[in-house]
Amino acid sequence: MSSSSKSALSALGRRSDAPPITWLMILALSRPKLISLAAGFTDQETLPNTETLSLLTDILGDSKRGKAALQYGTTQGDPVLRELTSLRLLQQDQAAVARWAESRCDSAGNRSAVSATSLDVSAYAPERMILTHGSQQLLYLTCEALCDEGDIVLVEDPTYFVFLGIAQSRAIDCRGVKLDPDGLDLDSLEAQLERLKKSGEIKKLKFLYLVSYYQNPSSVTTSRAKKAAALKLLRRYERAAGHPIYLLEDAAYRELRFEGDDVPSLLAEPGAAERVIYAGTYSKPFATGIRVGFGLMPEALQTVCLRLKGNHDFGTANLLQQIVARSIQTGIYAKHVAMLRKRYADKAAVILHALEENLPSSCSWLKPNGGLYVWTALPKHAKAGQKGKFFQAALDAEVLYVPGEVCYAEDKSRPRPANEMRLTFGGASEDAIREGVRRLGKAVGKFYGKS
Amino acid sequence: MSSSSKSALSALGRRSDAPPITWLMILALSRPKLISLAAGFTDQETLPNTETLSLLTDILGDSKRGKAALQYGTTQGDPVLRELTSLRLLQQDQAAVARWAESRCDSAGNRSAVSATSLDVSAYAPERMILTHGSQQLLYLTCEALCDEGDIVLVEDPTYFVFLGIAQSRAIDCRGVKLDPDGLDLDSLEAQLERLKKSGEIKKLKFLYLVSYYQNPSSVTTSRAKKAAALKLLRRYERAAGHPIYLLEDAAYRELRFEGDDVPSLLAEPGAAERVIYAGTYSKPFATGIRVGFGLMPEALQTVCLRLKGNHDFGTANLLQQIVARSIQTGIYAKHVAMLRKRYADKAAVILHALEENLPSSCSWLKPNGGLYVWTALPKHAKAGQKGKFFQAALDAEVLYVPGEVCYAEDKSRPRPANEMRLTFGGASEDAIREGVRRLGKAVGKFYGKS
Repeated sequence: MSSSSKSALSALGRRSDAPPITWLMILALSRPKLISLAAGFTDQETLPNTETLSLLTDILGDSKRGKAALQYGTTQGDPVLRELTSLRLLQQDQAAVARWAESRCDSAGNRSAVSATSLDVSAYAPERMILTHGSQQLLYLTCEALCDEGDIVLVEDPTYFVFLGIAQSRAIDCRGVKLDPDGLDLDSLEAQLERLKKSGEIKKLKFLYLVSYYQNPSSVTTSRAKKAAALKLLRRYERAAGHPIYLLEDAAYRELRFEGDDVPSLLAEPGAAERVIYAGTYSKPFATGIRVGFGLMPEALQTVCLRLKGNHDFGTANLLQQIVARSIQTGIYAKHVAMLRKRYADKAAVILHALEENLPSSCSWLKPNGGLYVWTALPKHAKAGQKGKFFQAALDAEVLYVPGEVCYAEDKSRPRPANEMRLTFGGASEDAIREGVRRLGKAVGKFYGKS
Repeated sequence: MSSSSKSALSALGRRSDAPPITWLMILALSRPKLISLAAGFTDQETLPNTETLSLLTDILGDSKRGKAALQYGTTQGDPVLRELTSLRLLQQDQAAVARWAESRCDSAGNRSAVSATSLDVSAYAPERMILTHGSQQLLYLTCEALCDEGDIVLVEDPTYFVFLGIAQSRAIDCRGVKLDPDGLDLDSLEAQLERLKKSGEIKKLKFLYLVSYYQNPSSVTTSRAKKAAALKLLRRYERAAGHPIYLLEDAAYRELRFEGDDVPSLLAEPGAAERVIYAGTYSKPFATGIRVGFGLMPEALQTVCLRLKGNHDFGTANLLQQIVARSIQTGIYAKHVAMLRKRYADKAAVILHALEENLPSSCSWLKPNGGLYVWTALPKHAKAGQKGKFFQAALDAEVLYVPGEVCYAEDKSRPRPANEMRLTFGGASEDAIREGVRRLGKAVGKFYGKS
């Protein structure tokens, strides 16, 4: 890039770094024998081509319905799909809350005060929803609507690295909050908030970004109690901030649960609708080639996001919305998700078994209850980063992972662990997973010993 | 919106106005009997539901092909569709240049020096292309990549009002350049450039936005000679600007030509590839429910746009790209476009005939050679704006148009005409067009006399 053409760029343009995905893909493409345990692709075999064709035959085979699907929709998104999504989410939360109350009753021996009917139905209203080009677009719109350069967002340590890419590009200052195996560390959250309050930076804090279900990259789920407590904690600092502090709940992997109970979303908490932005998606649980995500949010914010979305693209491709709506109406969606959960449960078992067999006891990993990832730690002193010798050795053995350090915000107030890897069992076949982990195990053995 | 929640918004969020489309749609929805000559919808009857289903049967009926279409693609877009688009564009320009040379030979009586083979093929390379979620997304990405708040963009008087919405939202300062019936007024362009140079503001000028084919809203096409001259003119001011000044050629309506010759794009000009951003789309010529647009641009800019696109949504929905690719490969696309041209020619004839019959001679309009719009002027002193009595009278008569004034940039250096309307023959049926124009004619007669 010549310096003169560079100077025509905006500050945003000049600043935006290449995302990690770029060099990961270049590596993958340049090595045809490479087994990728890196790419967040979904399982190829189970992609619903027959089901999608049958849905499209229903839609396009009917002249009126077909032509409506091929015309522009609205910026906010198809009313029917919003209605279906809203109802589905409400029912999901009602069931999750009921199950939660039941489990508390079991353990505490008395009836919980919370009942499923106590949910604030208006929090789930289709009017509060925007349908987006994948939930990624909702993350982008939220950042645009809320954050100026230099504004602060709290993120988990580690967090979804593409979100960090948005933040880097838009000069949003991300601060890390510790993540425990059962979710966000509340003490760490409070400590960050206190620090921001003391320094006066709290005025720049706009939201907490929480990937609450089977998190990318760690597979950790944040419990209902922790989510509710985090929301309360944020509210306590609003006076110091001088404005609302939102909580963006990214539920991208919620549908991909294969063990344990579903956790109620933050929308189920009383009054949460005023502060919670809930982002979900149909892409990962149905087909990633069909990009439809959705978000529910407070009205003031929604008004702005709709204006921005209008400028981005007027609205999400209507045909895709119709496929998703019909998949829900016909039950094809529910059936597909049920099958997919079983499939990922099997693939998770394969990778966990392979890790057990091939990695020395100096390594550890978190057992996922859903999602696509196994967050794996090499010994503490190990360096798994892109520029390190271990990453190169893995590459030489034809296996690719995502270095864990790209999942940590640039927050100088704490060290950034360098010994972690994000492995995925999403895209690779069972054989590839086994072989990939075997290769990885060999590299680990060479570098860090076999025990 | 409470003032406290407003204060959590970013400057971009606070600034973004509701687009005209919002109140136009609210009006349309609140009046079921309304005939809309406003909405930029495409013809409903000819939407290709049978063709699309047959393409999808080909794609999804084959397991391997189907699963590939349902998986993520790349951020840049499907290589096959980029290849097809690149080739198609090159052939289009080669034919247009040949035809242009021929016509010059005819009129001047000697052979033109320009031959079709002299095109710089590398300007059309698929590597230079990004596939986007409609060409609207390309406009947004370009603004993000090039413009900071307060930067300047030159636009036609009038121009595409959604582009003005992006500019308003992002605090980009648009300056108007006069538009003649044969395109951009070069004297006016030079005068604006001189003014910017004198004031020193030229340093903030980033690009000229030119809707070059059957412009929305005016239906004007800018000739090859004028486009080439505009590009040269911009280059002359680059030294003063201190950076490249780009020319964004928005060719959204190019395919919808129903009269006259195709005009070569700016990519056909020698060296233009360094400065031209070419935006095209498959949505309007095929189906607006399938959102696939594309852009070709200089490498330095493309690198940035790809990073931004990765943050927006990773990439355009793969299934939609596969539909478009297959429609080109099978010839379905070409056949559909040919049919559509005929269809819009007929509908344009209907609206022109209706205008002739119903509007007094104090009104005038431009005869379109393509696109979806008829730019219509009431008498000079008339006020056709949203808040005026005439707009209300038209509404009371159940007919809706886009007030022309929303298509002019906020540029205080010249008055903004208030007597114009954008009418469209795209979405409405022939009967609705006739009846809509009849109603409009009655309102005009009442306000401005019958002759």
